[in-house]
Amino acid sequence: MNCRLQQVGFLGFDVFGTVVDWRSGVARAAAPFLERYDIALDPFDFANAWRALYQPAMETVRSGQRPWVRLDVLQRENLERLLAGHGVAVDDIPERDLAELTRAWDRLDPWPDAADGLARLKRRFVIAPVSNGHIAGMLQLARFGGLPWDAILGAEISRSYKPQPATYLKSLEAAGFEPGQAALVAAHNGDLRAARALGMHTVFVRRPHEYGPDQDQDLRAEEDWDVVADSLTEVADILGCA
Amino acid sequence: MNCRLQQVGFLGFDVFGTVVDWRSGVARAAAPFLERYDIALDPFDFANAWRALYQPAMETVRSGQRPWVRLDVLQRENLERLLAGHGVAVDDIPERDLAELTRAWDRLDPWPDAADGLARLKRRFVIAPVSNGHIAGMLQLARFGGLPWDAILGAEISRSYKPQPATYLKSLEAAGFEPGQAALVAAHNGDLRAARALGMHTVFVRRPHEYGPDQDQDLRAEEDWDVVADSLTEVADILGCA
Repeated sequence: MNCRLQQVGFLGFDVFGTVVDWRSGVARAAAPFLERYDIALDPFDFANAWRALYQPAMETVRSGQRPWVRLDVLQRENLERLLAGHGVAVDDIPERDLAELTRAWDRLDPWPDAADGLARLKRRFVIAPVSNGHIAGMLQLARFGGLPWDAILGAEISRSYKPQPATYLKSLEAAGFEPGQAALVAAHNGDLRAARALGMHTVFVRRPHEYGPDQDQDLRAEEDWDVVADSLTEVADILGCA
Repeated sequence: MNCRLQQVGFLGFDVFGTVVDWRSGVARAAAPFLERYDIALDPFDFANAWRALYQPAMETVRSGQRPWVRLDVLQRENLERLLAGHGVAVDDIPERDLAELTRAWDRLDPWPDAADGLARLKRRFVIAPVSNGHIAGMLQLARFGGLPWDAILGAEISRSYKPQPATYLKSLEAAGFEPGQAALVAAHNGDLRAARALGMHTVFVRRPHEYGPDQDQDLRAEEDWDVVADSLTEVADILGCA
């Protein structure tokens, strides 16, 4: 059996976009909220607009402009900013509804191949999120979607946000693996570039509809990643995992 | 169906002694080592003697005498101390053998009821170790014994050792639960006392042979813990988990 990445024992996963479909899940949760508060925005556009605030918010932490905070705090701030930007009087919305909508990020459907692919990969590899998500959110996502992680690593373990080296390196250190014994699995070329620079192996999973039908980024492998696939089940096939 | 601890969503577990049988596993790994190096010690006595150094070593961290270090570091130091105390020239033993024996703590059999009990409890509760073990060790134990944790919390998350409050509180914070929404499951009255003092619920599991046939501690519930049981499957029965 051809079983690639022989020296690898640990697979770290990007989660938002790579394992779960955040756009559909956020749109599903946003639809009744937008209707209730009479906000004239398409739920899918709303999801993309919320997501668009994600990197700039993390950048305020990466740059040292503010101390590290968990992703749920940033997502909540971004929600309020997004609503205010559309003329919504955020203070008039009950706290309960804002908190509930923010928890949409904890209830996202996995891509159809994800739970099966992870279960197969787990037979050979230690698997864990190396995500910018916080532990409680990753934990709820796993229970919601049946994702069989061995542990939850990533931003909250390292108190840093990818692509900062610490997020990868402290996650690997906690799991007990060297970079050369580990691979990052991600749908984003930039994430893989950061991982490769640290000596990790790289697995690119194409998710061409992460951002919807008009996606114009990460449609293809931009470097010679060690594995390139269209699903996590295909990753399991390629890595020779029964 | 009588389903107790209605307000509880999270169960944190002590692991060494409560979920896994460290004494048998350490003795099993120690037996060939003791024979190879001609050390006249019964493997089970060796396991108990190694374990006896566990609390004093953590106390050097709790007291602030030394900065926080992971449990595998303490276990390795304790091994060398134990061997030296029996006249063994530790420097003459290959590093590989010392490292291998230390990893005995990552390959311990669960008590016979543990994997099934955890799988049932996971249907209703978020379950995670709140152990003094480090993440990599807990992760290997879970894979070795089929323990279906939702996440791995505890000492390494908090950089503190139970019964310090931070170990419990930072684990709960990471999982997204208040103390009143959580219970500690442990075979040790002292661990439960610390958890109760913080507002957590308490589940005592009797493990009368954790230390062997002559065990003289934690043979019974010393306070009116919320649940008292003889196995994790009995805990699942009592908590009304199908």
